[in-house]
Amino acid sequence: MRRFAMSRKVTISDLARKLNISPSTVSRALAGKPGVSAELRQKVQNLAKEMDYVPNVAAKSLKTKKTKTIGLIISDIRNPFFLDVMRGVESVLFPRGYKFIVCSVNENLEREAVYLNWLMEHGVEGILASPLTTVSGKHNGNLYRKVARFGIPVVFYDRLINGIGDFDSVVLDNETAIADGVFYLRRKGHKKIGICLARRGLYTIEERYKGFKKAVELLQIETRPEWIIEGKHPMYSSFEKLKKLFSSEERPTAIISTNHPMTRSILRAAKSCGLRIPEDISVLGFDDLIENELMSPPITTIRQPVMEIGRIAVTLLLGRIDGEKESPSSIKLKAELIERESVKTLVE
Amino acid sequence: MRRFAMSRKVTISDLARKLNISPSTVSRALAGKPGVSAELRQKVQNLAKEMDYVPNVAAKSLKTKKTKTIGLIISDIRNPFFLDVMRGVESVLFPRGYKFIVCSVNENLEREAVYLNWLMEHGVEGILASPLTTVSGKHNGNLYRKVARFGIPVVFYDRLINGIGDFDSVVLDNETAIADGVFYLRRKGHKKIGICLARRGLYTIEERYKGFKKAVELLQIETRPEWIIEGKHPMYSSFEKLKKLFSSEERPTAIISTNHPMTRSILRAAKSCGLRIPEDISVLGFDDLIENELMSPPITTIRQPVMEIGRIAVTLLLGRIDGEKESPSSIKLKAELIERESVKTLVE
Repeated sequence: MRRFAMSRKVTISDLARKLNISPSTVSRALAGKPGVSAELRQKVQNLAKEMDYVPNVAAKSLKTKKTKTIGLIISDIRNPFFLDVMRGVESVLFPRGYKFIVCSVNENLEREAVYLNWLMEHGVEGILASPLTTVSGKHNGNLYRKVARFGIPVVFYDRLINGIGDFDSVVLDNETAIADGVFYLRRKGHKKIGICLARRGLYTIEERYKGFKKAVELLQIETRPEWIIEGKHPMYSSFEKLKKLFSSEERPTAIISTNHPMTRSILRAAKSCGLRIPEDISVLGFDDLIENELMSPPITTIRQPVMEIGRIAVTLLLGRIDGEKESPSSIKLKAELIERESVKTLVE
Repeated sequence: MRRFAMSRKVTISDLARKLNISPSTVSRALAGKPGVSAELRQKVQNLAKEMDYVPNVAAKSLKTKKTKTIGLIISDIRNPFFLDVMRGVESVLFPRGYKFIVCSVNENLEREAVYLNWLMEHGVEGILASPLTTVSGKHNGNLYRKVARFGIPVVFYDRLINGIGDFDSVVLDNETAIADGVFYLRRKGHKKIGICLARRGLYTIEERYKGFKKAVELLQIETRPEWIIEGKHPMYSSFEKLKKLFSSEERPTAIISTNHPMTRSILRAAKSCGLRIPEDISVLGFDDLIENELMSPPITTIRQPVMEIGRIAVTLLLGRIDGEKESPSSIKLKAELIERESVKTLVE
């Protein structure tokens, strides 16, 4: 049980005692400051190595405020979207010596508040957040502002809070992404189109719904209230609604998803109703996992530049940590429609 | 630019000055310690709230050593396996007020060492690690021991380092998982079986290979060197090898995967060679994403209890953090074979 037989940590005083010099001389030697001979410095460094001395950054961080840690608030750890966000974030942080703490809010305002308070108290240098807005319009905007006043910069990614413009943000152009999807379906001959809204209230989903409504109105495409599927948790509550829709004679010819879990739900429901894709119903996915390509048929989908969202957001955040004081940036990135085989061309 | 207009943080001295009492009285009042009247305590607490006073836990942690943070070392952030590990870990940590820092090592020993040193210096209370072993047998075992001597408990999950038994560990029974897969294929009539080893050297992959070799020997199943595919990065280097194998007349009737990225690679290669699954080749996957069920055909696969691995590992770690001093536990969990439609029944 070597691990638990360990004695207390080696301190600067231990090193000083061993060498019979003052603790401040040891400090100076380890920090490479002047006033210590090269020979003595070497001696101190050798002993520090030998005795497994590890500098206490928590103590240092009290003076320098550099914990080299940021908080990453993600909305739902079940969504593979966030794996790519983390990859993007990490690719920028690692070379800079920064690390991130993952805070999975699970679409719950109280959890988000718990995490924000915890991050403030534990001295992260900045926060990247995909903030929650509920269907009744509640959010933690004031708490985010408190965090910023406290001196911790915040950058929003993926989602915004409407009416709170005092933070940098990097999001998708969600409206255009879905509108382009509707245009695409119309070009393929579809005139009856439904949409699955993963969760009402969320910034991303509401923006995607706006894009849908504008495009169907513009193109005079038929849609009906029962073709607008809303799910609180896409894998469960929407599944039954989708099965009901798919079993009906009055179903649309094409259906649009608004995130990857929702695409899964659509595919499962179609399968369980015995509908063939695209022969019986066309599916336009949202988000792009490698699996989309391996499905039968491969899924036509709207792809977000997820890693870029993470990379750009964290780059903005590091700039703020370094003291950048320009007005907030609002960055919107473009989606891309990846054409595969889940949308049928209808004869007009 | 409200965020940058903020003044410095509110301190205990600021509160003391405002109330014209001593800083130590403010401290006692905020900590709920005796020697302060209920009335004064209320006054101090109200002012603290009003002035957005946030206690400095970094300072507190110097005395109590409680940063309430653990490090989570993951081997490859591209593998969705780790999303479920994180879900499991978080489900245990959140109610206890703990958070985790994600360290993605990308199968690189130097990165692993950088992360371990960083975690030591920044005062995490414990580390959950899936440690790397290279094909030549190198690993950071000594550094892990140094971390433990330094007083930071370590628990291994998913992977071990051979010969280093002084840590708690939670892994899959990898040998049996693959051997059971071979038995299953044999029962379905397969006598020519190949395997795709995601990356040689890794503990998990070597154990899975051992299980394969034992089972094919026991059952006198034919296998050939060219049916053992090795990939450094499964999506790239193994893809060409798989295409070559699948284009050959001399291919096995079934192939076993050893992780999810490798399953993807097998499916892509089969598709690109025009092989139908399971008519032309049977596929036994490893790991289970929802997508496996949605593929055509749905993929028969070996499922690891991933969330449980995360949950049990972090529970052991919290026990060590709380001072548990029993001998290390070596926990092995069982896999489950999920039968779907990617394995053909051969007529004998």
